Amino acid sequence: MRVALYPGSFDPVTNGHLDVLTRALAVFDKVVVAVITNPRKTPLLPVETRVVVLETAIRDAGIDADHASVATFDGLTVDAAHVHEARWIVRGLRAVSDFEAEGQLAHNNRVLADDVDTVFFMTAVEFGYISSSLVKEIASYGGDVSSMIPPAAMTALRTLARGR
Amino acid sequence: MRVALYPGSFDPVTNGHLDVLTRALAVFDKVVVAVITNPRKTPLLPVETRVVVLETAIRDAGIDADHASVATFDGLTVDAAHVHEARWIVRGLRAVSDFEAEGQLAHNNRVLADDVDTVFFMTAVEFGYISSSLVKEIASYGGDVSSMIPPAAMTALRTLARGR
Amino acid sequence: MRVALYPGSFDPVTNGHLDVLTRALAVFDKVVVAVITNPRKTPLLPVETRVVVLETAIRDAGIDADHASVATFDGLTVDAAHVHEARWIVRGLRAVSDFEAEGQLAHNNRVLADDVDTVFFMTAVEFGYISSSLVKEIASYGGDVSSMIPPAAMTALRTLARGR
Amino acid sequence: MRVALYPGSFDPVTNGHLDVLTRALAVFDKVVVAVITNPRKTPLLPVETRVVVLETAIRDAGIDADHASVATFDGLTVDAAHVHEARWIVRGLRAVSDFEAEGQLAHNNRVLADDVDTVFFMTAVEFGYISSSLVKEIASYGGDVSSMIPPAAMTALRTLARGR
Amino acid sequence: MRVALYPGSFDPVTNGHLDVLTRALAVFDKVVVAVITNPRKTPLLPVETRVVVLETAIRDAGIDADHASVATFDGLTVDAAHVHEARWIVRGLRAVSDFEAEGQLAHNNRVLADDVDTVFFMTAVEFGYISSSLVKEIASYGGDVSSMIPPAAMTALRTLARGR
Amino acid sequence: MRVALYPGSFDPVTNGHLDVLTRALAVFDKVVVAVITNPRKTPLLPVETRVVVLETAIRDAGIDADHASVATFDGLTVDAAHVHEARWIVRGLRAVSDFEAEGQLAHNNRVLADDVDTVFFMTAVEFGYISSSLVKEIASYGGDVSSMIPPAAMTALRTLARGR
Repeated sequence: MRVALYPGSFDPVTNGHLDVLTRALAVFDKVVVAVITNPRKTPLLPVETRVVVLETAIRDAGIDADHASVATFDGLTVDAAHVHEARWIVRGLRAVSDFEAEGQLAHNNRVLADDVDTVFFMTAVEFGYISSSLVKEIASYGGDVSSMIPPAAMTALRTLARGR
Repeated sequence: MRVALYPGSFDPVTNGHLDVLTRALAVFDKVVVAVITNPRKTPLLPVETRVVVLETAIRDAGIDADHASVATFDGLTVDAAHVHEARWIVRGLRAVSDFEAEGQLAHNNRVLADDVDTVFFMTAVEFGYISSSLVKEIASYGGDVSSMIPPAAMTALRTLARGR
Repeated sequence: MRVALYPGSFDPVTNGHLDVLTRALAVFDKVVVAVITNPRKTPLLPVETRVVVLETAIRDAGIDADHASVATFDGLTVDAAHVHEARWIVRGLRAVSDFEAEGQLAHNNRVLADDVDTVFFMTAVEFGYISSSLVKEIASYGGDVSSMIPPAAMTALRTLARGR
Repeated sequence: MRVALYPGSFDPVTNGHLDVLTRALAVFDKVVVAVITNPRKTPLLPVETRVVVLETAIRDAGIDADHASVATFDGLTVDAAHVHEARWIVRGLRAVSDFEAEGQLAHNNRVLADDVDTVFFMTAVEFGYISSSLVKEIASYGGDVSSMIPPAAMTALRTLARGR
Repeated sequence: MRVALYPGSFDPVTNGHLDVLTRALAVFDKVVVAVITNPRKTPLLPVETRVVVLETAIRDAGIDADHASVATFDGLTVDAAHVHEARWIVRGLRAVSDFEAEGQLAHNNRVLADDVDTVFFMTAVEFGYISSSLVKEIASYGGDVSSMIPPAAMTALRTLARGR
Repeated sequence: MRVALYPGSFDPVTNGHLDVLTRALAVFDKVVVAVITNPRKTPLLPVETRVVVLETAIRDAGIDADHASVATFDGLTVDAAHVHEARWIVRGLRAVSDFEAEGQLAHNNRVLADDVDTVFFMTAVEFGYISSSLVKEIASYGGDVSSMIPPAAMTALRTLARGR
């Protein structure tokens, strides 16, 4: 069985992430969406919320839970890949700066674990301008991000805004 | 009347910014220089000082105040454009990394407000190496930045240094 | 009156070119679309056809002929700008490699004629992957390019294919 | 069965190509290496030689011929993918300029055939500086390219040189 | 005597830094490795440790201490160059984003001191993926970075980890 | 004695080339400007003219002929370096696309000859927009390139134009 890990902060998951996940699911038998719980970064959404939003978005997209599962990890991406018996890391590419940083990560990951390779998918043009950080900034000013993130993520952002 | 918004931190305004403003003024009937007052960022100069420095630099450049005005905003750039009835956002381009970030912003702004377009000017080569953040770093070490920023900004930096 | 020159090979004009033209028409009082007739390059479509295709595409887009006209030129872009009394050159930006080449041209044009400035528009994301050369390559293999170029350009390509 | 197409000129195949092929074979059940026989380009090696070199290099690498086959095509890459019932196109990424051109091709291919996706692998750092065109230029001056291309390609280049 | 300054944070020094240093030593009579002690940044290793690690790594590499010395500085790089009577600043280049930032710094340094030039060396491909910040991140998760940094830096990171 | 090779087409030499040469001469004891006489490319100026223009421009710049000499070569750059006992190749960097191509060449040259290193200088901002190919295109249309190339190159271009 070909298992791949799709690591990220997913703070929150965007339609661009879901596009990459859908493409990866066509290639791999199973994709583990792995949410980074880096205690040194300050996410907008707590990790539990990010997991629930991802699970809901995956279910809403009609994807079988056996096919795409959600997990969390803190540490090296290659260690998370080993835990989930994933031989591939999946990453989406948008811009040139993405490409450089991703290339550096991929080469480092190969040095750390030569049994794990990285596979890249090109984000569809209509999602190429979306990033979680821009979504958060726009939403913080009351901008409409409903075309950029799935409904489950919209609900989480609204709940968060109400609580403030 | 063709009104454009020229948003930025202007912390402080540089000769590169003034070059872009001058080019934009040739195209548009009015340009509103809009200073971002993002409470989450820590600027060197308080927003009031940045506004006064901009107004002085614009007057010193012999530009009519009816033609170029200075305002502040906190929020989405497209919302500030709507407030000032500006149908265009003006941005200067220097390097490749500028270009990518600016492209992402321009596409997002079109999604948020399809009645606002972004127009880009290429910073003149002699100003292409100047950025506000480098100016601040050089000035903090006593380096001479008088060829990079207008006299009004020099005065503001010196006043700040004396107060420390 | 603010006149701009929009130079290019337009071999053939694409929907990306028309997107840039429409944005430029909102800023300028008149835009002269200027077809380069470089005798050293071998275009697919003869210059007469490219002009007719552009004029038809502009009319089909409901644009007033007084507002956007089509001309040809062989020589320096700044000389063509002077001929048409245009103080601005309009260019569309798509990718990073575009940006670099365009920046070099813009700086050279300023050295050659300091009364002509270049204004850039960011091609809409849905047109960002289209280029005339790719359109020609795809069409030469019988691929469907009808979503990439206007109907007048489709007709010209089909006529050309039949004549071979 | 997951079939992928790995298109290219392979004039000649390099160790970088073989690195990408090996990675692709771990993901896909079958990879068809598809040699472009573009009559408008002038290759160094005739297409028959390029096919034999590829087949030899694949056999020398110990790869099962059922797993990786070699074919030729002239036309659209997505049409070749359909012929071989491949739902994926495999491409290697090295530099930033690769990335931009490849992104444009991938987006165009999706417009032409939405049942074919492109999957990217990052060429290993030790092969990142190798390109077929540089290999040809170095070899034409008698430079040693034996660390850059497989033995079968070395033989083909030497045979060609003797024939001149 | 041709003296060059090689400035950086060296937090910690990597094999990529040592590669650049070795190349610079072939060109210049003396290279002063200058550790930035910016009080506004929070390094992992205290400046004293970084100096000792550098001195040990230089000695371990068999380099004569008269040829390569280690110093610290806080302030403008060109001022540090003047202090050490260095007419050149040495920098390593890896990726495109490196290049842009380095170009901006080099141009600013020429404006600040036209008697100091910047000379660039291309990091060897096998070290091109290494950066101090990635080394720190990988090491913080227990990843093996022994192929990326010299033994002296390994010891410093281990001592630091034990002290926590 | 530290000898460096500065290879290029120099068709014609520009003020940017002379800027790089001057910087290189401060670092190295001798710089051999090496004109590529690639029979497969069609230069504007014959190689003899390019050599004379370079020699004149170097003399006009007040540079000692013992310090900077002009040679021609056809073949691998590292072979030319060996012929002239040069341990370094000098290259100027302007834009991001320059950087990538130059990096690839530098890595290949190290594979071909590990006793030859490449040293890069950043072209001064005022020359950063100049390239020989743009100079040729502008001059062919009668544009004024006198601020971009040395007087000796102007004379050569004018002589060529009269002869046509």
